[in-house]
Amino acid sequence: MGEATTARRDALLQAAQRLFSQRGYEATSVRDIADAMSIKAGSLYAHIETKEDLLWEILTAAADRFFAAIEPIVASELLPIEKLKRVIAAHVEVITESASSAAVYMTEWRHLSEPRRSEFAARRDAYEELVRGIVRDGIRAGEMADVDEKFATLLILSSMNWIYQWYRPDGPMNPEEIARKLTAMLLKGLQRAGV
Amino acid sequence: MGEATTARRDALLQAAQRLFSQRGYEATSVRDIADAMSIKAGSLYAHIETKEDLLWEILTAAADRFFAAIEPIVASELLPIEKLKRVIAAHVEVITESASSAAVYMTEWRHLSEPRRSEFAARRDAYEELVRGIVRDGIRAGEMADVDEKFATLLILSSMNWIYQWYRPDGPMNPEEIARKLTAMLLKGLQRAGV
Repeated sequence: MGEATTARRDALLQAAQRLFSQRGYEATSVRDIADAMSIKAGSLYAHIETKEDLLWEILTAAADRFFAAIEPIVASELLPIEKLKRVIAAHVEVITESASSAAVYMTEWRHLSEPRRSEFAARRDAYEELVRGIVRDGIRAGEMADVDEKFATLLILSSMNWIYQWYRPDGPMNPEEIARKLTAMLLKGLQRAGV
Repeated sequence: MGEATTARRDALLQAAQRLFSQRGYEATSVRDIADAMSIKAGSLYAHIETKEDLLWEILTAAADRFFAAIEPIVASELLPIEKLKRVIAAHVEVITESASSAAVYMTEWRHLSEPRRSEFAARRDAYEELVRGIVRDGIRAGEMADVDEKFATLLILSSMNWIYQWYRPDGPMNPEEIARKLTAMLLKGLQRAGV
């Protein structure tokens, strides 16, 4: 694609992502997206086949960012707890960089049709498995408590994935602070030691 | 309302709740709800004013259940950590009793129009404040670590509110076990003590 076309496509994906995150995928029409870009709906079809193609491209790009952020950490020689700390920081950074992307990623995938829906689910499962591997290694190495490995993984992911719901770039906490506090609470717990 | 009318209305709310949780509120038409009940859309309007009335009734009933479950615990004379344990168990029970109700409660409220949207947000804030009060008391009493009180509250709520996404009544864990594991992880943390 030429430079102008790529820029137009990026603007299109940004507009779609914003609307999908605000109103939901089903409630957003191609016409709405065109209106948001101040162009005619007909012109949009030079750039996309269907509305679902836009959703798919947004979800794929989001998944790519999550994987790219944590794969080098998972593959490193760090000890499990240190890996987990860095994975949390990297994942939180991806979410806070684009809350609208995260919102679409967390909630709108269910509107995909098959086989895309299954393909998306498989990528989410693979991502969960990367985090679960760290928890498993941490338990084996004696760094982590003898917890239910799957449940602990869900707790870690869910507590991070909720952040897009309340994070604001102009809010009181920056991404590093969020990751640091979250990591401390998840690792050390809320109860005072010895109580 | 007569008994027959009440039964029909309950069936209507159940059907709407199931469809809203599966497809999303915006993607569900009154016609879809009527089809799911095998009646004519016209007959539905004897029972509702608008589709949003159904959403509002579902959300209000869900909020009522959450409050009814935890208010007696909050008002009790128990110590903060014990209160927190029981609140988690009660909240998890509400979610697992009806995952479709929880799904609508967590995601579809954003489709409310004003002033209902603000009223709903105020109730959620009030609920969050009940949990936050326990965390605050726990920190003051020295039972809980000196954590960021608001952040800890969000962690507790978010880790519970994610459960509707993966809980299955025929799955390997019952609600009591989920609450017990979640409570242990949140209170004691994932890191092995002393590491």
